[in-house]
Amino acid sequence: LHSGAADKVRQLLSVLHPAEIGDLLESLPHGPRELLWELVPSEEQGEVLVEVNDEVRSGLIDEMETHELVQATGGLDTDDLADLLHDLPGAVIHELLLSMDKQNRQRLEAALSYPEDTAGGLMDLDVVTVRANVSLDVVLRYLRLRGEIPELTDSLFVVNRFDHLQGLLPLSTLLTNDPEASVAEVMNRDVEGIPATMKSIDVARLFQDRNLVSAPVIDENNKLLGRITVDDVVDVIRDEAEHNIMSMAGLDEEDDIFAPVVTSARRRAVWLGVNLATAFLASWVIGLFESTLDKVVALAVLMPIVASMGGIAGSQTLTIMIRGLALGQVGSSNARSLMLKEIQVSIMNALIWSLVVAVIAMAWFQNMDLGLIIGAALIINLIFAAVAGFTIPLILKRVGVDPALAGTVLLTTVTDVVGFVAFLGLGTWYLT
Amino acid sequence: LHSGAADKVRQLLSVLHPAEIGDLLESLPHGPRELLWELVPSEEQGEVLVEVNDEVRSGLIDEMETHELVQATGGLDTDDLADLLHDLPGAVIHELLLSMDKQNRQRLEAALSYPEDTAGGLMDLDVVTVRANVSLDVVLRYLRLRGEIPELTDSLFVVNRFDHLQGLLPLSTLLTNDPEASVAEVMNRDVEGIPATMKSIDVARLFQDRNLVSAPVIDENNKLLGRITVDDVVDVIRDEAEHNIMSMAGLDEEDDIFAPVVTSARRRAVWLGVNLATAFLASWVIGLFESTLDKVVALAVLMPIVASMGGIAGSQTLTIMIRGLALGQVGSSNARSLMLKEIQVSIMNALIWSLVVAVIAMAWFQNMDLGLIIGAALIINLIFAAVAGFTIPLILKRVGVDPALAGTVLLTTVTDVVGFVAFLGLGTWYLT
Repeated sequence: LHSGAADKVRQLLSVLHPAEIGDLLESLPHGPRELLWELVPSEEQGEVLVEVNDEVRSGLIDEMETHELVQATGGLDTDDLADLLHDLPGAVIHELLLSMDKQNRQRLEAALSYPEDTAGGLMDLDVVTVRANVSLDVVLRYLRLRGEIPELTDSLFVVNRFDHLQGLLPLSTLLTNDPEASVAEVMNRDVEGIPATMKSIDVARLFQDRNLVSAPVIDENNKLLGRITVDDVVDVIRDEAEHNIMSMAGLDEEDDIFAPVVTSARRRAVWLGVNLATAFLASWVIGLFESTLDKVVALAVLMPIVASMGGIAGSQTLTIMIRGLALGQVGSSNARSLMLKEIQVSIMNALIWSLVVAVIAMAWFQNMDLGLIIGAALIINLIFAAVAGFTIPLILKRVGVDPALAGTVLLTTVTDVVGFVAFLGLGTWYLT
Repeated sequence: LHSGAADKVRQLLSVLHPAEIGDLLESLPHGPRELLWELVPSEEQGEVLVEVNDEVRSGLIDEMETHELVQATGGLDTDDLADLLHDLPGAVIHELLLSMDKQNRQRLEAALSYPEDTAGGLMDLDVVTVRANVSLDVVLRYLRLRGEIPELTDSLFVVNRFDHLQGLLPLSTLLTNDPEASVAEVMNRDVEGIPATMKSIDVARLFQDRNLVSAPVIDENNKLLGRITVDDVVDVIRDEAEHNIMSMAGLDEEDDIFAPVVTSARRRAVWLGVNLATAFLASWVIGLFESTLDKVVALAVLMPIVASMGGIAGSQTLTIMIRGLALGQVGSSNARSLMLKEIQVSIMNALIWSLVVAVIAMAWFQNMDLGLIIGAALIINLIFAAVAGFTIPLILKRVGVDPALAGTVLLTTVTDVVGFVAFLGLGTWYLT
């Protein structure tokens, strides 16, 4: 990049927000990415680091000197800093801690004391609190004196002198009521704080169902700890949805699409290896029927149809279950009805498609019995596929394994094995 | 349900928000769902209808009399009503239009004039506007006189007398500045309205990147039309992510998981039929090599391995592409580097796994040549899989077909056909 081009890029960067610079960095291959990174003003580098995915972030951090990192991250909010901290080198953390005052160090420790995927891990500490016994006019004067209100503040939090949450004072209430009224008279008392231990996915559902912009986070004694804002919740929702789609292909949503070839190859090799094991299991099952295949080669020609239809039907049930479990739509109360429905649907489709397949097979190989065998095998496999697609995610969830990650492999193992055993087994039985 | 239980349910419903009642209805099978619906207070039924998915909604509407529907939907905001309108019976629409005043009728027409998936279709009309030349004190008095501010208002919109957008007055700015200052002095001028024709997916990205709570929507002359709020954007983000995961299994995110068995079976039958066609194509390819299979039955035992490994490797590339296209991460500028990377990754994995497969096949069948043949076939198929996983979504996107929907079918067709042709073709060539 010659210097004229660099100036143009700098100009472009100055109108982009940190998240947009992050998107741009993520979509650049290595080389151009590092060049662009050097042009990002150092006072913005910290916020960009917060926005990019884990892998891109650690790559960028590796490029930077200790003093650059301290400068870039020194101005961050403690909650953002808490998110970054495990990626920073020890020397940088040490310098950052030294440069902090006691209050900020305590805040950082508080933010680090909750797991990342809980309300405590999501919260920031930019709360504006007021007392219930003052008048709105006092609140208005206090805000003017304060001079600024943190981003995404739609409510002030009303607390007593022990910092216990008493209610919310929405800015709209503050603005539309008589300044002589007291906070206690107009505040919203019908508010439950979010426990710091609540899972972030449940926090996301709460925000979504109640159209919240921000909400207070409390400890087990109703003491105000911080707040969660809708921007963090949007990230949780997007990450969760992407996690499901990526996991189903054995990928991770935090991976860099331009990771080094060796790194990507190694990661995907694991998934290919797991699938190879199940493919060999299927082959071994086919091998049990070698003598049958030797006699009727048409069975070898048709056998992928039985396995593949089972895989497709099963993956439909599996996808509905994975999404239903993620949305909390599927639980013990409706599991029975849903399973019944899935089995009925699969029986209907089994009847229709086994008829079609049977007729085509008969016509193709001029063999009535072959048609009957493949039709029967297809019915068996589609019903097994529905049962497997329904039970596998429930079992995985109970044993604490991510259904989106392991579900597809287990399902196709079942549909391959059942499909081959049913089809080749029926063929063998017919021959003897 | 006896009446005591009904009272308890009513009590439960009274503490739930409309979106939560909607979630509950969606997760109930038919029967219980209709019973619960009758217990929802009629003044809340309209808002619940807005929250449930398309299919559940039309089921609930079918249950209701014309006068019940008019009562339930009469109190809705025009933007919510616009979303519902195409599901309501003609008689209900007629009565609703008659009961509206001219202004509301015009608002409804405006909301209906933009497609659902654009900024115009997302916007509501609850804007609070102020003029630039008044003082903040005047604004404060105006808000008190107004008595309420619409939900999710974080900024007032500053317009001139032609309703052209001039800037934003965030509530936090209003609250922290001297009441004597004029709006013009403190307002945020650095604001671009969202064009009404912008795609909702781009609106969502903008909200996410810039941490917005609400944003003004304008026409081509910079005239203020309405506003978009973060709650609608959250729905867009969730729907988009769910759409991808559901489409990949040939499902629709708006479907009712408790749809009647016949309805569900018919929908899924289409997907099974499409896949059956590709499975028969694969079978036909195998059939071309019938005489080879007749001679070496081991080929029949091993052939699913080549096809299945290709399918897995290809689906990894495909998933990365589908997500990258949805996030705007993949474009013409980086497509070349990404394709190069995917091919390199696939070559590395092809070399590793073909070696493993070759060794196992040799040991299993005590046949050196069989190992070499399957190893070579696997290398060919994995490289084709990467190219197909990369190019198929790009081609589909260019011709306007959803890559998430059609990508998987096309990809497995390629990997099955290439896998069988490579493996059985090499086997035939070796025999002759």
